[in-house]
Formats: sequence, C-alpha cells, structure tokens
Amino acid sequence: MSEQAANTVEAGTASTATAQPSANKQHLILTGDRPTGPLHLGHFVGSLRNRVTYQDLYKQYIMIADAQALTDNMDDPAKVHNNVIEVALDYLAVGIDPSKTTIFIQSQIPELTELTFYYMNLVTISRLERNPTIKQEIILRNFERDIPAGFFTYPVSQAADITAFKATLVPVGDDQIPMIEQTNEIVRRFNRLAKKDILVECEALVPEIGRLPGIDGKAKMSKSLGNAINLGASEAEIKLAVRNVYTDPLHLKVEDPGHLEGNVAFTYLDAFDTDKDSLQAMKEYYVRGGLGDSKVKSRLEGILQDMLRPIRERRQEYEKDRGHVLQLLKEGTFRAREIAAKTNDEVKAAIGLKHF
Amino acid sequence: MSEQAANTVEAGTASTATAQPSANKQHLILTGDRPTGPLHLGHFVGSLRNRVTYQDLYKQYIMIADAQALTDNMDDPAKVHNNVIEVALDYLAVGIDPSKTTIFIQSQIPELTELTFYYMNLVTISRLERNPTIKQEIILRNFERDIPAGFFTYPVSQAADITAFKATLVPVGDDQIPMIEQTNEIVRRFNRLAKKDILVECEALVPEIGRLPGIDGKAKMSKSLGNAINLGASEAEIKLAVRNVYTDPLHLKVEDPGHLEGNVAFTYLDAFDTDKDSLQAMKEYYVRGGLGDSKVKSRLEGILQDMLRPIRERRQEYEKDRGHVLQLLKEGTFRAREIAAKTNDEVKAAIGLKHF
Repeated sequence: MSEQAANTVEAGTASTATAQPSANKQHLILTGDRPTGPLHLGHFVGSLRNRVTYQDLYKQYIMIADAQALTDNMDDPAKVHNNVIEVALDYLAVGIDPSKTTIFIQSQIPELTELTFYYMNLVTISRLERNPTIKQEIILRNFERDIPAGFFTYPVSQAADITAFKATLVPVGDDQIPMIEQTNEIVRRFNRLAKKDILVECEALVPEIGRLPGIDGKAKMSKSLGNAINLGASEAEIKLAVRNVYTDPLHLKVEDPGHLEGNVAFTYLDAFDTDKDSLQAMKEYYVRGGLGDSKVKSRLEGILQDMLRPIRERRQEYEKDRGHVLQLLKEGTFRAREIAAKTNDEVKAAIGLKHF
Repeated sequence: MSEQAANTVEAGTASTATAQPSANKQHLILTGDRPTGPLHLGHFVGSLRNRVTYQDLYKQYIMIADAQALTDNMDDPAKVHNNVIEVALDYLAVGIDPSKTTIFIQSQIPELTELTFYYMNLVTISRLERNPTIKQEIILRNFERDIPAGFFTYPVSQAADITAFKATLVPVGDDQIPMIEQTNEIVRRFNRLAKKDILVECEALVPEIGRLPGIDGKAKMSKSLGNAINLGASEAEIKLAVRNVYTDPLHLKVEDPGHLEGNVAFTYLDAFDTDKDSLQAMKEYYVRGGLGDSKVKSRLEGILQDMLRPIRERRQEYEKDRGHVLQLLKEGTFRAREIAAKTNDEVKAAIGLKHF
C-alpha cells in the first residue's frame, strides 16, 4: 500500500524527519499521496505525523494526487476516485488541520496539466530514461517496454505540481531525490528561457531513518503485500496484526537469548514507544534471554491501540459527514487553484502564449 | 516554411483534395497550421484553398497550433507568438470566413492539455517509438537522442485536439496517416475503458496529388529552404521568384526540345492554370522545341500575379486593424473552447475525476 507514497514526492517512510531547515513561514511545503488505498502506519511514521508538525512551521500544501495515480492505474479509475475521500479522511484523522494546511485534489487544477504540457518541451526523452527513480519504478511495476507515456513522463508532471506553488521544501525519501533534481533542472531551464526568475528551485526534505517494515519483516509496509496496519484499523485488526508481527525466529524458548536485528516488534517500538529508558531495559532483557515475545508484543499492542484509537475515532466522526469533507477539499482546491493559475499565467506569458 | 504544416494534421500539399466524403454538415473537420512563419503557395495548394471549399460543405475548425509549434521551437517562443496573427491574416486573405469557419488559438484552450495529459496513460512509449511519422520527423530535425518529450509525445496532443472537437474528418498528407491511426487507437481504448462511446473516430481526408515543389525544384516548398513564394508576396517578389523558377537544364537554346518532368514552371502551371487546353498546347510546343522558357514563365507570372493580387490586397486591408483580427480569434477561441470543455468534462467524468 505504500505504493501511494512510492510515486509521490513523499516516498520516504522513516520515524522522524530531522532535516528541518529553520522553521520559517516563508517556506512552502508541497507534499501528497496517490489515492490508491487507505493510508497505514508506514505513511504515519514517514510523513503524516511530520505534516502535523510542519503545518505550524511552514505554509503547507497537501495534494491528493489522483491524476498521478492514474498514470499506472488507468485500468481502475474507480479505485482512484473512491480513495480520494478515504485519503482525506486519513489526513483529518491524524490531525492535519484544513485551517492550517491547504488540502487539494490534483485533477481539479487544470493549470497543472498546462504546466506539464509546456515543461515537456524542456526535458528530453533520454534525460527521462536516465532518471534512476523512474528506472526503479519501471522494474517494480514489470512495465518493461509497455510503459504508459503518462507514467514515463510523470517527473515532468511532478515538476509542474511543485513549481505551480513555488514550493521551496519537498519531503521525499532519498530514493526520490532525482525527482527533485529533475524539477530544479526544469526551473533553471525555464528561468533562463524567460530571462526572469519566474519559477523557484526547491529543496528535498529527507527524513533521517528508512522505511517502516511490514509486519512480516519485509522492507516495506504495503497494502498490496498484505503486511500493513491501516490507520483506520479496528481494535481487533490491530490485535491480530501485532500477533502476526515478525520477531526472532531463533528465539524458540523464553529463556533463549533474543535478537533485535530484523525484529519488527522492536522496530515498531523504536518508532512509537516514547518511554525510551524502559524500552532500552526491555531490549537488554530480551537479548539476555528470559523475556517472551508475548510480553514484547503486549507492550507494542498497548502502544498501537492507544495511538490509533483517537485517530480511528476522529476518522469515524468525519466519516459521518462526507459532504463536509468534500466541502473542505473543495475550499482547499479553490485556494490552491488560485496560486497555480497565477504561476501558469506567468509561465504562459513568458513563452508568448498570451494573446487576449 | 512548409514546416508549419509538417507537424499539423494537415501536411499534404497537393493541388486538389479529391477524397471528399459526401458533403454533409454533420461532418466536422479539424485542421490547422503551426505558426512558425508566413504561409506560402504550398499551403495554398495543399490546404488553404480546400478549406475555402470545405467551409461550405462541413463544420470546419481551424487551429493555430502555437502550443504544438513550441514542441520544437521552445528556444524561440517569440517567433511562434508573432506568427499567430500572421497565420490568421493569411487565412482571412485567402477567403476563410470566420462566420463559417471557427478559427482558434490552441494554447488558449487549456482543456486540450488536460485531454493530452490523460490520453498519455493510454499510449505506451514503445508505441510512440514505432510511429513512422515521428521517426521521420526526428530524422528531419536531427534530434537523435535529444528529442524533447513534448515533441516525442505530440501525436497524443494531436489526438486531444482532434477528439476534443469530435472531428470526423482530418485533412492530412499520406505521410501523416499514422497520426490518424494513433488517434483512433486512443479513441477505441478510451471508449472501452469508459464503457461508452464518448470519443469519436476520425477519417483521414487525403488529397490526391503530392506536395508543391519549391521554386528551386526541391520536393518541398519551405520557408527554411528559401524556395517559397509567400501568399503575401509583393508584385516584385513574385516577379523575381518566377524568374528563378527551375525549368529544364537541357533546354539551352529556344529551338531545343524541352522536358516537362521536374520542370517546376509547368508543375506550377498544372496547379494554377485553369485554361487546361491552352496549357496542353503550350506543353506540346515546349516538348517539340521552339518555345523559350521566358514565354512559359511569363504565362506563369501572369497567373500568379492575378491569383495573389487579391489575396495580398485583402491581407493588407486586414493588417490595418490587427485588433479586429485578434477579436475574431478571440471569438473563435471562445466558441471552440466551449466544445472542448464539454468533451473534457465527459472524459474526466468517465475516469472518476469529478468530485464537486
């Protein structure tokens, strides 16, 4: 499921974003998710909880990237459509506040497609072929030669999204840094052409720690791998998921010494347990031997239940009035569109596309 | 200069379009030119004079393809900008009537970029690579590996232009038939996806005769080759051009037998002389020997002066009030945009991109 993030400007899933430039409302963050399924703990750790912090430090725009999601989901547009509001519910549930953060739907801002169209003239096919992120994604999706043109060129669309808002900070995983470089190349080429600094270069905001693994120990938590804990998971679902969390296969008897490496229960505790001293003591006990997995999992389950309960409850509240959530999206999209339209006007004027 | 037409849906330059399906106002024609220079006799023969006929037979939309022109002119956007009105003046001068034909500026209809964006998901990179027209154009432009992505994908943009208006007839040279096939592939893929016939397939309207050669005998009349006679050419320019028209290099003395093959003076007479009997007699005399080139050229010059004089005069009239010409373009663009917006709405609704 982390595939949502995989293609957005925010793919990194890590416990904390530490690379925070000085808090400054002058900075504008653009980030977002592809609406292809409900968001999960991986998103929470890697991005969502950072956004709750960012919205007090910066101007923050969050894009529900439905147009981008279609670049490799054109066979199932209904999935993308239906997940737009689900993702919005997840945002509101974790505490992203529409009075502080502008949440908008990508496809409802046609100016983003205009910018994409014109930026396409500033990027060569061979440059796109060399993009390491695209290379990797093509392998992941088994596209081989049948890459949809829209998918192949999505770095250009991403540059349009970022520059439309003149974003200066873009949260990304380090695998997505080439996308930021591509955007800045377009910015420089365009400004040189316009003989004027119309577009603004951006900076990657890279979290320090890697992805949250799936409950099965696989490197990536993902809906499609079936190893995710959704943000809206019920109490019973959380219980079951924690029971299935991968620990130490060599830790057969309670008295055996346990191992921490690759032990997902401890990875999750590292990510979510705020009582670091007590956690450290537990780790030492586990390594020494004598501490059963069930004790570790019980601690983990308690923490996750406590953390996810208010999120789930807020989500349920918002779910009661989807019309209201749509209204919030509409207002955010309206505000975002005004900004994108202004940039688009400047871009078109600079390349001779104003006549009336 | 015929490069304008080279990338549009109307590249064929031929003396008459004969492949006219039954005259029927139900048919909608989309055609256009890339505004990269003034239009010339090649355009007149290959397309402009057909359009004057078409506007009484069909609904006709003519697009000044500035956005497409930028796909390989991004280094000189001012050229494209300035030629928009020049091309419009040429249209009006040859008798394209804005009360019968909708003339519009491509870049002023953002919905065309939205359609392009979504159609990109229906076409693979390898399919675009196989497009023979694109292959040929890449060679012509010496792009090799440095093909701008916008140029490489312009068949998708062209499909957007055609389908936005639900055009059923598209005048093209036979080298451009693959573009029509690409458009119809997109139409079929989209309609299958939408489970509804939203888009309409189109038919190529291919003129019978090939391109008008340049005055130097090269296969193609083109501004960049310097072998064109512009529609707005002055009397003196026409005189000089006819003097330089390539005839028969073996026809050294008046009494020598002359050759008609590759003799541009006779090719032009075939295209423009309406007195076919007298022309036939002149050809026989020339082949027999005894008829000097100067006599042939004198006849040709008379015909061209007579043909181009009213065009030049009408052009000069319109040039006096460019504001009025812009107003005509604005009105045409407004009408065209209403139609494109309606199609775009249907397309977006079918792929789940309507929320509000």
